[in-house]
Amino acid sequence: MSGQVVTGINRADAALIEGLAKVGVSTAHEAQGRTGLLASYMRPIYPGARIAGSAVTISAPPGDNWMVHVAIEQLGEGDILVLAPTSPCTDGYFGDLLATSAMARGCQGLVIDAGVRDVRDLTQMGFPVWSKAVSAQGTVKATLGSVNIPVVCAGALIHPGDIILADDDGVCVVSRSNAADILAKAQAREENEAIKRERLAKGELGLDIYDMRGRLEAMGLRYL
Amino acid sequence: MSGQVVTGINRADAALIEGLAKVGVSTAHEAQGRTGLLASYMRPIYPGARIAGSAVTISAPPGDNWMVHVAIEQLGEGDILVLAPTSPCTDGYFGDLLATSAMARGCQGLVIDAGVRDVRDLTQMGFPVWSKAVSAQGTVKATLGSVNIPVVCAGALIHPGDIILADDDGVCVVSRSNAADILAKAQAREENEAIKRERLAKGELGLDIYDMRGRLEAMGLRYL
Amino acid sequence: MSGQVVTGINRADAALIEGLAKVGVSTAHEAQGRTGLLASYMRPIYPGARIAGSAVTISAPPGDNWMVHVAIEQLGEGDILVLAPTSPCTDGYFGDLLATSAMARGCQGLVIDAGVRDVRDLTQMGFPVWSKAVSAQGTVKATLGSVNIPVVCAGALIHPGDIILADDDGVCVVSRSNAADILAKAQAREENEAIKRERLAKGELGLDIYDMRGRLEAMGLRYL
Amino acid sequence: MSGQVVTGINRADAALIEGLAKVGVSTAHEAQGRTGLLASYMRPIYPGARIAGSAVTISAPPGDNWMVHVAIEQLGEGDILVLAPTSPCTDGYFGDLLATSAMARGCQGLVIDAGVRDVRDLTQMGFPVWSKAVSAQGTVKATLGSVNIPVVCAGALIHPGDIILADDDGVCVVSRSNAADILAKAQAREENEAIKRERLAKGELGLDIYDMRGRLEAMGLRYL
Amino acid sequence: MSGQVVTGINRADAALIEGLAKVGVSTAHEAQGRTGLLASYMRPIYPGARIAGSAVTISAPPGDNWMVHVAIEQLGEGDILVLAPTSPCTDGYFGDLLATSAMARGCQGLVIDAGVRDVRDLTQMGFPVWSKAVSAQGTVKATLGSVNIPVVCAGALIHPGDIILADDDGVCVVSRSNAADILAKAQAREENEAIKRERLAKGELGLDIYDMRGRLEAMGLRYL
Amino acid sequence: MSGQVVTGINRADAALIEGLAKVGVSTAHEAQGRTGLLASYMRPIYPGARIAGSAVTISAPPGDNWMVHVAIEQLGEGDILVLAPTSPCTDGYFGDLLATSAMARGCQGLVIDAGVRDVRDLTQMGFPVWSKAVSAQGTVKATLGSVNIPVVCAGALIHPGDIILADDDGVCVVSRSNAADILAKAQAREENEAIKRERLAKGELGLDIYDMRGRLEAMGLRYL
Repeated sequence: MSGQVVTGINRADAALIEGLAKVGVSTAHEAQGRTGLLASYMRPIYPGARIAGSAVTISAPPGDNWMVHVAIEQLGEGDILVLAPTSPCTDGYFGDLLATSAMARGCQGLVIDAGVRDVRDLTQMGFPVWSKAVSAQGTVKATLGSVNIPVVCAGALIHPGDIILADDDGVCVVSRSNAADILAKAQAREENEAIKRERLAKGELGLDIYDMRGRLEAMGLRYL
Repeated sequence: MSGQVVTGINRADAALIEGLAKVGVSTAHEAQGRTGLLASYMRPIYPGARIAGSAVTISAPPGDNWMVHVAIEQLGEGDILVLAPTSPCTDGYFGDLLATSAMARGCQGLVIDAGVRDVRDLTQMGFPVWSKAVSAQGTVKATLGSVNIPVVCAGALIHPGDIILADDDGVCVVSRSNAADILAKAQAREENEAIKRERLAKGELGLDIYDMRGRLEAMGLRYL
Repeated sequence: MSGQVVTGINRADAALIEGLAKVGVSTAHEAQGRTGLLASYMRPIYPGARIAGSAVTISAPPGDNWMVHVAIEQLGEGDILVLAPTSPCTDGYFGDLLATSAMARGCQGLVIDAGVRDVRDLTQMGFPVWSKAVSAQGTVKATLGSVNIPVVCAGALIHPGDIILADDDGVCVVSRSNAADILAKAQAREENEAIKRERLAKGELGLDIYDMRGRLEAMGLRYL
Repeated sequence: MSGQVVTGINRADAALIEGLAKVGVSTAHEAQGRTGLLASYMRPIYPGARIAGSAVTISAPPGDNWMVHVAIEQLGEGDILVLAPTSPCTDGYFGDLLATSAMARGCQGLVIDAGVRDVRDLTQMGFPVWSKAVSAQGTVKATLGSVNIPVVCAGALIHPGDIILADDDGVCVVSRSNAADILAKAQAREENEAIKRERLAKGELGLDIYDMRGRLEAMGLRYL
Repeated sequence: MSGQVVTGINRADAALIEGLAKVGVSTAHEAQGRTGLLASYMRPIYPGARIAGSAVTISAPPGDNWMVHVAIEQLGEGDILVLAPTSPCTDGYFGDLLATSAMARGCQGLVIDAGVRDVRDLTQMGFPVWSKAVSAQGTVKATLGSVNIPVVCAGALIHPGDIILADDDGVCVVSRSNAADILAKAQAREENEAIKRERLAKGELGLDIYDMRGRLEAMGLRYL
Repeated sequence: MSGQVVTGINRADAALIEGLAKVGVSTAHEAQGRTGLLASYMRPIYPGARIAGSAVTISAPPGDNWMVHVAIEQLGEGDILVLAPTSPCTDGYFGDLLATSAMARGCQGLVIDAGVRDVRDLTQMGFPVWSKAVSAQGTVKATLGSVNIPVVCAGALIHPGDIILADDDGVCVVSRSNAADILAKAQAREENEAIKRERLAKGELGLDIYDMRGRLEAMGLRYL
């Protein structure tokens, strides 16, 4: 079943992607009913980056990064590479040379359920990566995988063209077909939170703002 | 046994807390006979913070942060929130809104044997957190826990009002009743270390300073 | 078998060590056929350091840092301490006092398959450490180990006088006897990479530069 | 997106399932190009069981087994329950009462990316379970999930009606649409292996049977 | 604070202990509101044992089993040894010689948040152990600990004389003062479950027995 | 450095190996000063086996079992295969066909710092394996490794011809050159333990047999 490259994938509207970039991972994740989050072991190689873009997916054999070269040809402006190995692996699939090539093709970053290396160079280049591991252990180019097929990456199902959000809180996938709905819900949450933040900063309590005291008492909370 | 909020807890003298803040986790931990340290998986979300304060404890169900709102009302100036879930959990219990509310009530930071989120925002706000995980996975508000009861957090027993020390080395608890004694011992250690540091910096060897050669030889150390 | 200190170990030529410091961990590791890498759980306590030097090795009992004092006496200018416990341990063997002493003797850094503490101080001192853990849990001085015997550290066999490379990608050991050969191969790789980087940055694809298309087609890769 | 129960799912032919049960996990996994295997942390609660059946899938909230009751109504003769929590969890979702109910409805076993309990009773009942954990920590019945939607379980994508194979080697999923093809390939492998086993048992070497000597020599293997 | 042995501890009534032995870990744990469970990494060295008894607790230094000898003198008929190291450790504290001695003093089994060894011998002797690890790595006798003080073992707080339950599901502690109440609740649960088991065995659904359909529908469950 | 097969390795005397087989892992490990033990994650696929034999070592690339075929040709009667991957890997390198071949050549068992499969068949064949994982995930035959070179396996350094002991307590390596000495020490320990076992079984206390009371009192142990 490997050895397939799907070309010309569909992507979400740029305005939707831009909107989701602003709300960030935690809010988008809440807005879609607390689904779509990748495993919490996916950590950024440097803090502070926040990106959103369309997924170009790679299904790669363990310890073999040949398909990354194939995937780079399929990148469009603003896309995000998503690599899932077919078997658990922490090898360093990706370093500064591949990042140079990917950036030249418009890539914003990489999400990889395996290892990455040359992290000092990648940090200096401003190319963000969310990975399971950092490892200098390199890979070979010997076996085919596939590009732009659905993959399971860090426990989440990702289709090519789905929207990937990544920041210091982790990585979240938003299905392309739901993106408009999720963005609307996320923006509504943000407006609501802005009002709440102001009240909380003045010392008002969540117990009162959210009207929790009655329900807590009814459930039996006792103050001693 | 859940559903209890203990109000008006006792706290250690401010001078003791201030003194312990200066000695830091490693020295305080040594001073109390290498006890009181939380598990080493408790890591800070950003480096460089060093805090000390009285524990306001939260026993929370897995994936449910309702009791955090209840605990915030119990905070005094300089306190530290300590959250222990009743079952292992890495969900993100705490983010920027709760931090806003806690800071408005005088809270210095959070120690949580579970996950935290909005870490970029928390870093910008200067609100330090020591946690087991970072996760965007949010929580519900459905089940009661307790506030200000003894909890086991990351393997250590913590009573409300105990003194929590946290820095880049980890987190340590000092029992309120022992605090004066521990502070005296820690300060004595620090004075002793200052003298040693000076001698070592000049190239003198620990072998000589601590007079180890005889004992090593007696135990059979051979130089080849 | 413990209780041995080998003095007057042989070291590689300074020019070789200096050369390897420039190529870094990932390239050196590739140049020696993807061998010599320590386990990827060995992480630096702060980012950005890159060192190379001769290994002064320590075989230490679990929770006992006595031999570190012994090893410091054996340090030469530019050496790197390498500590392997005889049983798995995450205790904090090493802190700012020992670092002060080691630096006074010319030590460049520490590689330890166990825990380290006082990491804030070590960072301020500019003393880099690659470790398995950070832990305030201190150690005793009660049992002998050995210095400058071969050790297995984070899964790699290290002889005293071998060259240790460490940077943000991890830690790699280069055998002293192979160092000249490995350096030559690593430098050849670097020159080759410089040319490739330029072409990739212009948007040329690895698929074309490395002439992969024919081989991929022959193996059955299909574009859909 | 939760709160859905898909009824009347399609299943593979009984003959296909029966055939796959005989070949077992390792052979089936090879036959489909080394794909479909669940993470190796999925272990049987007792050794020796080997089952194959159609997946009835459960997407469950962490610590909440309400949907298991819903799923049991959807079971057909010979089916296998597959539970994936929506967030990592090791609670004991399933014990002897649920097993009694599931067996009464024809269920052959359970594959659960979380915890199970009452394992002594389950063993005596002969109800096999492959799980991530054993835990007496029970669950609540408070929140909706879904039944018979695609789930990601222990890193593998499983659709309702897919064929699940489980034995002492682990758990593998075979897509319903590919089952006939995979069974044919697996049976061909088994016939081939039977011949090889006979030759190997007589002391003939794989080096000769598989004609490896020339290829090894060409790649540079040296006998010293 | 170490170096203490408390003699003549109080124990629960034999009838209470016997009753709890029958209900087992999972039911007792439910009956006390899902509290008291030790971490799920505590596994039996052989399956099928189920014991209950009074805790004789040991607080031991890492890698040092000296206090086990001291504790054995404090054992009464039917007691259970509970060992918690003061720092995480997987060394093998306990083997067949100590088991021989403990059995001669009436001990039923061992719960140890560390390692055990000679497991084949222990199995043949019928001496059950629940441990964090199996390891042949032995220990020393060099440092003092304490016997019969409160300990935190695998995340649970245990006082000397508390009742320990252990079976294939894990280990649970019941406070001595609550034992009568917890036993009554556990027995009520068991009676209720017996009735449910019979109905479920006939094919009746939990959906109906627990009258769940209305609540499911009200919460929006949809059958497609 | 890969691509080497060392033929005609030296082995220890059969009488030494036979003697060590009787004393077992824990005693041999003690006898050589608590060294030589492999990591405790190395577990047997079935209980009860106890073997000792000369190591035929395999250094294999991750996910590639080609060298196992090469190693089988190098086996002598009673040898034990020891496989260490050059990078961490849990794939199933070894199953029933390879076991058939190895047994035909006199092999007693396998020690593998990676995965094994067909465990039900291996158990029925009586071919014991100590492994890091069980996984149906197979491997390829594409890259060279080496046979009979020194390897680091599960944290221990093993030379070809060293004696491997394995039983339910784990795996231990005894250097060929030390074997006679270690065997003598182990047998002396066993004789001593036999005497102690008899006294302990009669109820005599370790406190008295080992004459500990005075030393405990001198260190300050208090009976309350």
